[in-house]
Amino acid sequence: MEIKIVKQILEWNEDVSREVIDLLNGKKVSLVNVMGSPGAGKTSLITDIIRRLSETFRIGVIEGDIAGQIDADTIDAMGIPVVQLQTDGACHIEAMSIQNMLPMFDLDNLDVLFVENIGNLVCPAEFNIGEDFRIAILSVPEGDDKVHKYPLMFATTDALVINKYDMLPYFDFDVGRVEEDQKNINPKAQIFRVSTKTGEGCEAFITWLSERIAAKTNKKTEEG
Amino acid sequence: MEIKIVKQILEWNEDVSREVIDLLNGKKVSLVNVMGSPGAGKTSLITDIIRRLSETFRIGVIEGDIAGQIDADTIDAMGIPVVQLQTDGACHIEAMSIQNMLPMFDLDNLDVLFVENIGNLVCPAEFNIGEDFRIAILSVPEGDDKVHKYPLMFATTDALVINKYDMLPYFDFDVGRVEEDQKNINPKAQIFRVSTKTGEGCEAFITWLSERIAAKTNKKTEEG
Repeated sequence: MEIKIVKQILEWNEDVSREVIDLLNGKKVSLVNVMGSPGAGKTSLITDIIRRLSETFRIGVIEGDIAGQIDADTIDAMGIPVVQLQTDGACHIEAMSIQNMLPMFDLDNLDVLFVENIGNLVCPAEFNIGEDFRIAILSVPEGDDKVHKYPLMFATTDALVINKYDMLPYFDFDVGRVEEDQKNINPKAQIFRVSTKTGEGCEAFITWLSERIAAKTNKKTEEG
Repeated sequence: MEIKIVKQILEWNEDVSREVIDLLNGKKVSLVNVMGSPGAGKTSLITDIIRRLSETFRIGVIEGDIAGQIDADTIDAMGIPVVQLQTDGACHIEAMSIQNMLPMFDLDNLDVLFVENIGNLVCPAEFNIGEDFRIAILSVPEGDDKVHKYPLMFATTDALVINKYDMLPYFDFDVGRVEEDQKNINPKAQIFRVSTKTGEGCEAFITWLSERIAAKTNKKTEEG
């Protein structure tokens, strides 16, 4: 019985996510769903993207949190339009919440909207939010068995960012194993080894990301 | 409407968890709910407990995983009775699953049953599984803002284990902030600074844990 209820919620979520897609396609705004465990480095990746791409693209952010607004304050301090989405305990973001948030942005003057999902390797992956693509972050300290143990997130992502790569010497983390698991479950996902702290590997990721955003805005990155 | 559905599931879960409590009280078996993010060190903590306490208490383990059975294989190799609970995508363990698993253990010859919950800082905290007490693990690499950002888990735990404490020099992690947040949200929880890798801080935690288990079994830890 419980399974049926969950299916109803998911079907309804699919309907709303299609409305979000239609609206954002009309405005040529990319929606990027950023997911990962608590502490994997979602906010750090988004602030790094802002630093590197805010001259090229007009960026907005929706900060999902169960409680508080620490991350939204960080983004706001960078002069980027940000809206805080507090889920009040809920473990994921649904398309309806995104639909409700979109009118708070000036979509005619935006190229890309990043959604920082709730820190959770499980539930967010089940809910489309109308995104153009997904980025899953896995950090070295979390361990190299996570793609195998939490398959849905990695099966549905467009990019896997292996973050905190500078910490590799201090952890028993076999990056080859992670990449093999990722290729088995979802070979189309791009894989990046990154440290948002040292900047290592960030350029390749930013290049890929820019191309994805530019494809929708029809705005070449070099116009910046 | 969604909120009502969730409430029904939670109420039903409460009923079942009371049945689990009654059964385990009759057998004087402690049930310990071990929760934390993916990679926080739940399996490492449980294997450390087994190494230190398997001479003192008769230990069993229920290994919750979304997919796979890597952790159950690890426990099994230690000669401890273990049952794998695969949730097939579900983000938490419910009392009904525990109730279904209990007949697979020889409860008359068990003092304590550890449940390794799904790696998730959010959903598991909402579901009582009939546990005597909860242990929440937060690891240094996850960051010092997690008690503030994921309050329910820390509000409902009996112990906070700050794990991977040996990694403190490599991360910007203010342990004072974590402990203050924990005390504000739930001052009764015991706090332990631990490294399951180096053994640092493990003894204080094991002493506390032994007392909790012994209180139910009426078996003094020194009887070993």
